[in-house]
Amino acid sequence: MKQKRFFLSEAELPKQWYNIQAEMPTKPMPMKHPQTGEVMSAEDLYPIFCEECARQEMNMQDAWIDIPEKVREMYTYYRSTPLVRAYGLEEALGTPAHIYFKNESVSPIGSHKLNSALAQAYYCKQEGVTNITTETGAGQWGTALSYAAKIFGLEAAVYQVKITYEQKPYRRSAMQVFGAQVTASPSMSTRAGKDILTKTPNHQGSLGTAISEAVELARMTPNCKYTLGSVMSHVTLHQTVIGLEAEKQMEMAGEYPDMVIACFGGGSNFGGLAFPFMRHNFKDGKKTRFIAAEPSSCPKLSKGKFVYDFGDEAGYTPLMPMFSLGHKFAPANIHAGGLRYHGAGVVVSQLLKDGFMEAMDIPQLESFDAGMLFARAEGIIPAPESCHAIAATIREAKKCIETGEEKVILFNLSGHGLIDMPSYDQYISGNLHDYNLSDEDVEKCVAKL
Amino acid sequence: MKQKRFFLSEAELPKQWYNIQAEMPTKPMPMKHPQTGEVMSAEDLYPIFCEECARQEMNMQDAWIDIPEKVREMYTYYRSTPLVRAYGLEEALGTPAHIYFKNESVSPIGSHKLNSALAQAYYCKQEGVTNITTETGAGQWGTALSYAAKIFGLEAAVYQVKITYEQKPYRRSAMQVFGAQVTASPSMSTRAGKDILTKTPNHQGSLGTAISEAVELARMTPNCKYTLGSVMSHVTLHQTVIGLEAEKQMEMAGEYPDMVIACFGGGSNFGGLAFPFMRHNFKDGKKTRFIAAEPSSCPKLSKGKFVYDFGDEAGYTPLMPMFSLGHKFAPANIHAGGLRYHGAGVVVSQLLKDGFMEAMDIPQLESFDAGMLFARAEGIIPAPESCHAIAATIREAKKCIETGEEKVILFNLSGHGLIDMPSYDQYISGNLHDYNLSDEDVEKCVAKL
Repeated sequence: MKQKRFFLSEAELPKQWYNIQAEMPTKPMPMKHPQTGEVMSAEDLYPIFCEECARQEMNMQDAWIDIPEKVREMYTYYRSTPLVRAYGLEEALGTPAHIYFKNESVSPIGSHKLNSALAQAYYCKQEGVTNITTETGAGQWGTALSYAAKIFGLEAAVYQVKITYEQKPYRRSAMQVFGAQVTASPSMSTRAGKDILTKTPNHQGSLGTAISEAVELARMTPNCKYTLGSVMSHVTLHQTVIGLEAEKQMEMAGEYPDMVIACFGGGSNFGGLAFPFMRHNFKDGKKTRFIAAEPSSCPKLSKGKFVYDFGDEAGYTPLMPMFSLGHKFAPANIHAGGLRYHGAGVVVSQLLKDGFMEAMDIPQLESFDAGMLFARAEGIIPAPESCHAIAATIREAKKCIETGEEKVILFNLSGHGLIDMPSYDQYISGNLHDYNLSDEDVEKCVAKL
Repeated sequence: MKQKRFFLSEAELPKQWYNIQAEMPTKPMPMKHPQTGEVMSAEDLYPIFCEECARQEMNMQDAWIDIPEKVREMYTYYRSTPLVRAYGLEEALGTPAHIYFKNESVSPIGSHKLNSALAQAYYCKQEGVTNITTETGAGQWGTALSYAAKIFGLEAAVYQVKITYEQKPYRRSAMQVFGAQVTASPSMSTRAGKDILTKTPNHQGSLGTAISEAVELARMTPNCKYTLGSVMSHVTLHQTVIGLEAEKQMEMAGEYPDMVIACFGGGSNFGGLAFPFMRHNFKDGKKTRFIAAEPSSCPKLSKGKFVYDFGDEAGYTPLMPMFSLGHKFAPANIHAGGLRYHGAGVVVSQLLKDGFMEAMDIPQLESFDAGMLFARAEGIIPAPESCHAIAATIREAKKCIETGEEKVILFNLSGHGLIDMPSYDQYISGNLHDYNLSDEDVEKCVAKL
């Protein structure tokens, strides 16, 4: 029988994360202070982030950073995640491509987000922090952080994008099981939230608005730090455990990827899988293609502008050099809540600018077509975010049917969709629509930048 | 670092199921025809079940039955499931006990049910069946069967207990993703359903009523067979893959269980984990205790009567020798929908009668207390059914605190609770209640038997 899944023993699990910033041919441009416009140092981030995360954010020297032993111990609760050969999907497509996926959905909270939540909560605890805040879109990051906070004895306050809070209440419940306090954002509990609600009373929220609220709460609360689930370099750093495992597992399968594909919200699940492979493009002459799959309703990589922009709606975060649709951009209410974000992390933005990766934008309906096909072929109902990676994979696998090439495609199944069933209900009942952003729409957004 | 999880390679996966009927010191008493009362043969079951399952049901000779290669191939999609040392739970309890759990929740549909669904759908396909029907309580079995039907190209019709259909719509959606037709039961689509609704217009359904409807549909439809998710011996047979894996994995951990614990609805997840270990009690002088954890609102093992009774409300099924509260018993609306069943499988009933196993009844609130503690310690939100096994484990682990004994406890985490979050909402908001059946209530039920 052909081997379906590949695991690593606990002894083989990565002991270090991979910091691509140390090896990028062109370093990312520096972050700038939101008011003064001055170049920022790690110390400048201490008021918001825990110190170790701030240092990791700015670390351009060390390619390898030790994973603390306690974090490694918690990783053994669910890692290694399996590398899976998608025989079922290959057969359903009739493609000669060899399709693999890294199954991060088996993490106890259902997505890859726990990889960084554990690290951030651990460092906060080490530094004497007692309370942490964060935002969450689809709820996957918020669930991960709530659990990590519980593990390390911290209190967690989560601002959840209002539309998801209402549409997908199961995620809120999961956070509450882990003891977190959950607030629908925009809320009246912060100045940023009040400003937004005063201007737009029925504002449905976005990651940008929720970040503003969480950052404000962290700044206003003693002994409280802000954490986040994507965008920043240190988050992607923690996620490289995915790609480092996958590298060893692909070796067990006797293959090396021609393409590495992941969905793209802020960049952490993409970078987490891609960067460990990308270093071989930098150094060892590999020619792997790296494809970020983003929604056509929020195509910051495909159609956005490379500018200095804020990470949040209110303009509290540092100014970051990134591909963006503008921090005031309000993404359509697609079901992939985790991809409803206007910008991209600085590392990914630089890599895209330098041609080390590509972007592919996927309409919502195509993403669910892909998700349904995958569910029926592999048995796993994918998260709406992950459906974008599957759709991009299917596009490439179909090209292989035409060319007859046995390309090796590796994608990240970042999460399962068992808590996103209302989205599938809408798809099945024919009530799901596309919200593709036209070039004209994009032009209007980026003109202001 | 201490090893947390134990896996088997695909080469080490079981190639045969264990049929305890061949090795029980006292064979189970025979099933009887519902009308004539005559002893039934495998052939008598052919009108309802596929033939291979009917033969497995009656097989008292062969201790080992080959798993078809195609089923083994599909098992590799998610098996082996991990055996996990519950360090987090041990620490939270402060117990010297060594607690292990078999994590069946990592199956793509979230529970152990797929182990038998794949086998039953495979055999149906082999025999030229085109349509299959079934019932589902919490929805875990229905989801598993829907996926298995899709894999083997069969049409599936599922009767879902009405209260779950309404309270937990995500399960229905998941079945629909896999292409099944789902009907809330009791429905007006069968004679059995109509009879029930005529007598009790607001009947909320139970497994017993849903079985009646599914069996009726199978009998009335050409080329259609009935499948079910528990109770019958062949279902438990397929589930022994759990215990056979666990046996090898416990060996990897260097331990052997003093206690094996599982929640109990019809008996298949219990028997699936327990029977491969129980054979060593029969033959090798082992003294492992086997504990079935059932809800205090439906305590058929603890307080029911050993009688010949029907498996369903309408009396369509064979008469089976089992511990029962009576086939007309309507269980309270507890959240562990999979445990809302009046009777127990014939093998388990005989084993309980003969003293090879024990039953423990758990109040609903205690089960959720246990589930919350487990979620916060191990990160996995357990299904309400599995919470019963955890509660029983905690009772035993607490005894070890008193005695100081390092007992080895193995329990089955039969499923996760990510699609059961409304139940946790009620718990967290203080709106969850106990529905313990008093001895007087039980007396009333069993007096009629």
